[in-house]
Amino acid sequence: MKKPFLLMVSLAVGLLTSSVATAVDELPSWNDGKAKQAIIQFVHKVTKKDGPQFVQPAQRIAVFDNDGTLWAEQPMYVQLAFALDRVKAMAPEHPEWKTKEPFKSALAGDLKGVMLGGEHALLDLIMASHAGITTEAFAKIVSDWIADARHPRFDRFYTDLVYQPMLELLDYLRANGFKTYIVSGGGIEFMRPWTEKVYGIPPEQVVGSSIVTKFEMRDGKPVLTRQPKVNFIDDKAGKPVGINQHIGRRPIAAFGNSDGDLQMLQWTAAGNNPNLCLYVHHTDAQREWAYDRESHIGRLDKGLDEAKAKGWTVVDMKRDWKFIYLFEKR
Amino acid sequence: MKKPFLLMVSLAVGLLTSSVATAVDELPSWNDGKAKQAIIQFVHKVTKKDGPQFVQPAQRIAVFDNDGTLWAEQPMYVQLAFALDRVKAMAPEHPEWKTKEPFKSALAGDLKGVMLGGEHALLDLIMASHAGITTEAFAKIVSDWIADARHPRFDRFYTDLVYQPMLELLDYLRANGFKTYIVSGGGIEFMRPWTEKVYGIPPEQVVGSSIVTKFEMRDGKPVLTRQPKVNFIDDKAGKPVGINQHIGRRPIAAFGNSDGDLQMLQWTAAGNNPNLCLYVHHTDAQREWAYDRESHIGRLDKGLDEAKAKGWTVVDMKRDWKFIYLFEKR
Repeated sequence: MKKPFLLMVSLAVGLLTSSVATAVDELPSWNDGKAKQAIIQFVHKVTKKDGPQFVQPAQRIAVFDNDGTLWAEQPMYVQLAFALDRVKAMAPEHPEWKTKEPFKSALAGDLKGVMLGGEHALLDLIMASHAGITTEAFAKIVSDWIADARHPRFDRFYTDLVYQPMLELLDYLRANGFKTYIVSGGGIEFMRPWTEKVYGIPPEQVVGSSIVTKFEMRDGKPVLTRQPKVNFIDDKAGKPVGINQHIGRRPIAAFGNSDGDLQMLQWTAAGNNPNLCLYVHHTDAQREWAYDRESHIGRLDKGLDEAKAKGWTVVDMKRDWKFIYLFEKR
Repeated sequence: MKKPFLLMVSLAVGLLTSSVATAVDELPSWNDGKAKQAIIQFVHKVTKKDGPQFVQPAQRIAVFDNDGTLWAEQPMYVQLAFALDRVKAMAPEHPEWKTKEPFKSALAGDLKGVMLGGEHALLDLIMASHAGITTEAFAKIVSDWIADARHPRFDRFYTDLVYQPMLELLDYLRANGFKTYIVSGGGIEFMRPWTEKVYGIPPEQVVGSSIVTKFEMRDGKPVLTRQPKVNFIDDKAGKPVGINQHIGRRPIAAFGNSDGDLQMLQWTAAGNNPNLCLYVHHTDAQREWAYDRESHIGRLDKGLDEAKAKGWTVVDMKRDWKFIYLFEKR
């Protein structure tokens, strides 16, 4: 009687695990609704073996914008907060900054004053705070800063301001054979020191803007030095270019929150495979921020129109997300 | 008595599999010698858990030059043969090429005539044959060409001219948790259509030179068009830059065959982890080609000196490789 008994046990275990698998909600911070359903249906569709829309695992590329899609971008991009802090830290070596814009305003904490200088002023700040050192030294500075700096509104680490529903989505996609990438307008070397720990995305799967680096020998030791010169802007029409350059495959899923992500979504939507294009719409002034067509940061205007016209998924943060940050749950 | 019996069986099976594992030669096309031993010792060292030189799998990045390291680069780079064929195919649409250099020489099959024009002439040929179309159209042209074109000396497909010992090395490293990358001076989009099939290296793990691409809408469909403008040269000091840009981690193993790979090996050697730097030295005029310090293609001069000074591994193709191409074995 041993064999039949073992068979029954194994059958029972089989039934149990399969029913458990169905019952588990892999996106627990998402409220039931159109957005959650669209994600789940898409994943089922492309992973169903022998299904008409099955996509090979190697082709399951998912690309995520970072600022405003994976973490908060208000009241200013985190990288700008880093640049301002860095300028303050470097100020003692640069007495001339006391009277020179945009540094004078930056040191006074006067962001509006900085902005008066337009794009050039921002670029000056970025170059002064991001260039002139080796890649290794820069990575260390970023790591130290992100482990210490705090968001002005929440008084929490910036890495606590990542969206819990998006972390679940990253995990869910990876569990279904997707390779997850960041494709951000932010600096590639500003993100890489912490994306693996925070998002589970390793450095080689981070695409971003960059400045020129140069190989040099210093005291017989090879280093890469960061030059005050733009190399690549991974924003708007640059995003499909960056995707092609780094990944060399067209994504089948793309996630963004602004017009800067529009071309990335268009590029994804134009592939031959089934695809999922999704916009995160910032609608929650209470728990996060509410902004779209008129915002200077993360403007979502053309993208909102195109999402409607093309039937893309739009996440209404207020309605669709049960929790925004992990700390809300604690 | 059941338990002890099972224990003995499992012990016996364990001994059996462990002795089989030791007996299997994972690099059968390599003759026993210093090079093979250096590779095996390195892999054992970095994969030995609790060993003093253990390296986490995520850090096991191995970078391979392509031309002359993974496949033959004589009598000319394969990509140059492609460019010449492509110019011939395009000639009917360009009657002016009949009298215009370097096209006139290219069409006459006069490579020396082309070379008289120097780097500019080569660049003109590359741009004429590689730009002006979409990335998708270019990938199709490359795929069609590589499936059909034949090497002048061996009358075989170019992809038959890959080095069997290096294919085994790629597999061996991957079986030991390494992520294998190509880092080549060749065009990134010339390699990507076939590297996965030939080397088991997917497009996202190919780093190479590139021309500028531009996102455009054509009849409402987004495309990336290839512009006649250099974007990045992934050679010499460019290789560590390309590695940093694409991978964002320092390799622990680097494989090259020319001075163009020297900085990549220096960059790898300068890391904190144990590392393996290896040069393939072309010493077999019979089965392949013999060339080094004086060669115009794949010159290995400074690299040979530095390899000696630093104790890097140098593969003597004639002595170290039992087989060079798979077809020798058949």
